[in-house]
Amino acid sequence: MNYKIVSRTMGRLFWAEAAILCLPLLVSLYYKENLYHIYLLTIGLLTGIGAVLNLPKPEKRTIYAREGFVIVALSWILLSFFGALPFVFSGEIPSIIDAMFEVVSGFTTTGATILENIEGMSKSLLFWRAFTHWIGGMGILMFVLAFLPQKDMQSMHIMRAEVPGPSVGKLVSKTTVTARILYIIYAVFTCAEIIALLCCDMPLFDSVTTAFATAGTGGFSVKNASIAAYNSVPIEIVCTLFMLLFGINFNLFYLVLIKQFKRALKSEELWTYLGIIAVAIGVITLNIAPLVNSFGTALRQAGFQVVSIITTTGFVTADFNSWPMLSQIILITLMFIGACGGSTGGGLKVGRIIILFKACVRELKRALNPRRVKCIRLDNAVLEKETASATCVYFVVYMLVIAISILLVSINNHDFTTTFSSVITCINNVGPGLSLVGPVENFTVMSSLSKIVLTLDMLIGRLEVLPMMILFVPSTWKRNS
Amino acid sequence: MNYKIVSRTMGRLFWAEAAILCLPLLVSLYYKENLYHIYLLTIGLLTGIGAVLNLPKPEKRTIYAREGFVIVALSWILLSFFGALPFVFSGEIPSIIDAMFEVVSGFTTTGATILENIEGMSKSLLFWRAFTHWIGGMGILMFVLAFLPQKDMQSMHIMRAEVPGPSVGKLVSKTTVTARILYIIYAVFTCAEIIALLCCDMPLFDSVTTAFATAGTGGFSVKNASIAAYNSVPIEIVCTLFMLLFGINFNLFYLVLIKQFKRALKSEELWTYLGIIAVAIGVITLNIAPLVNSFGTALRQAGFQVVSIITTTGFVTADFNSWPMLSQIILITLMFIGACGGSTGGGLKVGRIIILFKACVRELKRALNPRRVKCIRLDNAVLEKETASATCVYFVVYMLVIAISILLVSINNHDFTTTFSSVITCINNVGPGLSLVGPVENFTVMSSLSKIVLTLDMLIGRLEVLPMMILFVPSTWKRNS
Repeated sequence: MNYKIVSRTMGRLFWAEAAILCLPLLVSLYYKENLYHIYLLTIGLLTGIGAVLNLPKPEKRTIYAREGFVIVALSWILLSFFGALPFVFSGEIPSIIDAMFEVVSGFTTTGATILENIEGMSKSLLFWRAFTHWIGGMGILMFVLAFLPQKDMQSMHIMRAEVPGPSVGKLVSKTTVTARILYIIYAVFTCAEIIALLCCDMPLFDSVTTAFATAGTGGFSVKNASIAAYNSVPIEIVCTLFMLLFGINFNLFYLVLIKQFKRALKSEELWTYLGIIAVAIGVITLNIAPLVNSFGTALRQAGFQVVSIITTTGFVTADFNSWPMLSQIILITLMFIGACGGSTGGGLKVGRIIILFKACVRELKRALNPRRVKCIRLDNAVLEKETASATCVYFVVYMLVIAISILLVSINNHDFTTTFSSVITCINNVGPGLSLVGPVENFTVMSSLSKIVLTLDMLIGRLEVLPMMILFVPSTWKRNS
Repeated sequence: MNYKIVSRTMGRLFWAEAAILCLPLLVSLYYKENLYHIYLLTIGLLTGIGAVLNLPKPEKRTIYAREGFVIVALSWILLSFFGALPFVFSGEIPSIIDAMFEVVSGFTTTGATILENIEGMSKSLLFWRAFTHWIGGMGILMFVLAFLPQKDMQSMHIMRAEVPGPSVGKLVSKTTVTARILYIIYAVFTCAEIIALLCCDMPLFDSVTTAFATAGTGGFSVKNASIAAYNSVPIEIVCTLFMLLFGINFNLFYLVLIKQFKRALKSEELWTYLGIIAVAIGVITLNIAPLVNSFGTALRQAGFQVVSIITTTGFVTADFNSWPMLSQIILITLMFIGACGGSTGGGLKVGRIIILFKACVRELKRALNPRRVKCIRLDNAVLEKETASATCVYFVVYMLVIAISILLVSINNHDFTTTFSSVITCINNVGPGLSLVGPVENFTVMSSLSKIVLTLDMLIGRLEVLPMMILFVPSTWKRNS
């Protein structure tokens, strides 16, 4: 472990967060909230500690895989901790465990909340809460890579550790340029959604925060009743479309940008993603139609909830806790599937599901014809053997983490549905679960131990297991000889 | 597909089942039940159809992997169907779907029942129900291999398809001899249990049927309240010890038999199995002690239930539906883990869990040091790379089957716990689930569709997915050119 390079990179990340925190500071000044001192205090702390961390001068400036993973894991934990301080200092979320849960839920774009009265919070804190979604969606290190390019950082390892999906492709040869292109696409889409929501008569503050939460596929709303509070069909439609959009692999948007439409449309992941959504909406609509007494309402509710859950956003317009079991199980299945790789969404990712499925089919064929070895093809290209087997192992680790988490949360002694769905919704970065953590409930019922476990699950889910796990391997911390 | 060899082998299996059905016939004559005609009818049907299937004379007598899988899958389905006929003919289980559920639950050693009043059944049918456990535990094809040795059958592929576990080792070079040794160990242990139960003052009929159900790790009891009905501590202890025994890899008993104690004691799977049981008993004892107000009772209840669930037997002496959530989740986890490979138990098998765990650790190490490729070691020997990756894929398929089954069972619109646990308990061949299919309940609440899905799950779990899946691959059915 090259401690000096880790320390220096962390220092710069602390400064970056200090800079980002100026935004909620401005919001608090605009709304004349008496909160500017808590932001200044946090910014001061971050700047000071960042300066200390920046002191060591590394001799070797290369970031290897190990350092990359450690930087990503540590920065997500520490930046969440400091990001939680304004909530604690303001007294609006007095417990640091609760505040950490809320901010990690923000950065990881989960959207699970411990707040019982969201509308009673200060505007600037609500803004900060929504903005964590926006930063976390694309990745805070990606943000630093994009806009504070540094010659002395080999950044591919960081990008690989932070960007979700089974395989990370650089759009162009330079990582920093790739990061910048992705962030610009991201920002343009976010602005488009703000404008669209304003056109639907949503207030400016709500439009901005809702757009942040949609873009990061987070799901924090500034209303207690989430999107249902606006009771507006156009707003629902705008949100559904943008959630759908932010669940797509951003590489495809880049391909469209450089006019390679054919290559973009050839993506198996895209069509599988859209196919799953269509089937899920179809089945749920038929399943809940008798309940809501109207095919149109059923379609609208099914569409919104399906897109919200598969993209792991977690906005709600209907209490699916009261839906028939088939619809609930479909939503739970969608939580596992998640959005496309390279999007801001969570879950296993559609791309991984395709690879897992093809690996199963290949195994079946091998059993029948042991001598004919087949390779897996994806988007008309041969998939590396390593990727397929790594994806299977990833799935195993992921299920193992889920099993251990459920065991730990079960100490809380809630019912089975609550215990199971709280872990599933957190590790897949969705937000709402079922039963006591259902769409119109929140996570206040959980004990501190459960909240800590679920907070870790959100991080493990967002960073796709490896970076978090590596923190617990002793050999990670060996000094370089 | 060599149809002739499949047909001929199936014919012999039909005759074997006809022979086995003479046992309940004798029991019905002994108890003077007016049921002998239903057994004679079934035996007649099996003999007749068997004779027809025996007609084609295969030119090639080799059984390849494909034929092996098809024979195993088809024979398990068809022999269950004919094994269910006595229940239907007698009118004691009028519906063929219910009777199939019961008999498949017997052969697969699941022990899930649709009977509401077990004690009201005829003795000979209860005997047949318990005997299906005994035959199914070791495998009906293994039985045929062991005692009707045929020169013209290459039998390794059948054994591989029917014996559970990540890797099948032949004890001695000849498959038929291996099968015979295994069956003799099995029979000796079963007799030992019958004698032990008789010494605990259990009636003869109950001792025999309980021993059959324990040996196959099945779980059918002749009492409505399962083992709790005897209210006897010695019986509980005898059952616990024998369940534990039948959950161990039979190869180890063979090693003990040929005095290779050291090799037997070196088995990682054995120690992991015992370790998991010890930890589970410890935690559950502490968890339920306040509930039963006595440490001793808590220990006894925890011990019995833990061993019963991990060996996938499914006997019960306590209603764990009312236990704290932590204990329930531990039991659900044990259902997934299951017994040792090469035992009569179900589940994923401890051996597979070890391989999966080691594959995860290797992946973690690879991420840290991409250039150092490590191999997985098991019992001090290097594990073939193929086995590790096949095990991971197996896990993926297994979870996929679970997901699809839960979706189908959820149409039944029971609560989440019932839906989830019914599939888990059936695919792992355990027996009792939670909530409406809990330890003191039964599967009558399920719709016909759910019963069919769960019946298939039991078969898929017992035959470890591949043989059942292969039935649905079109190329399986192509004629050999």
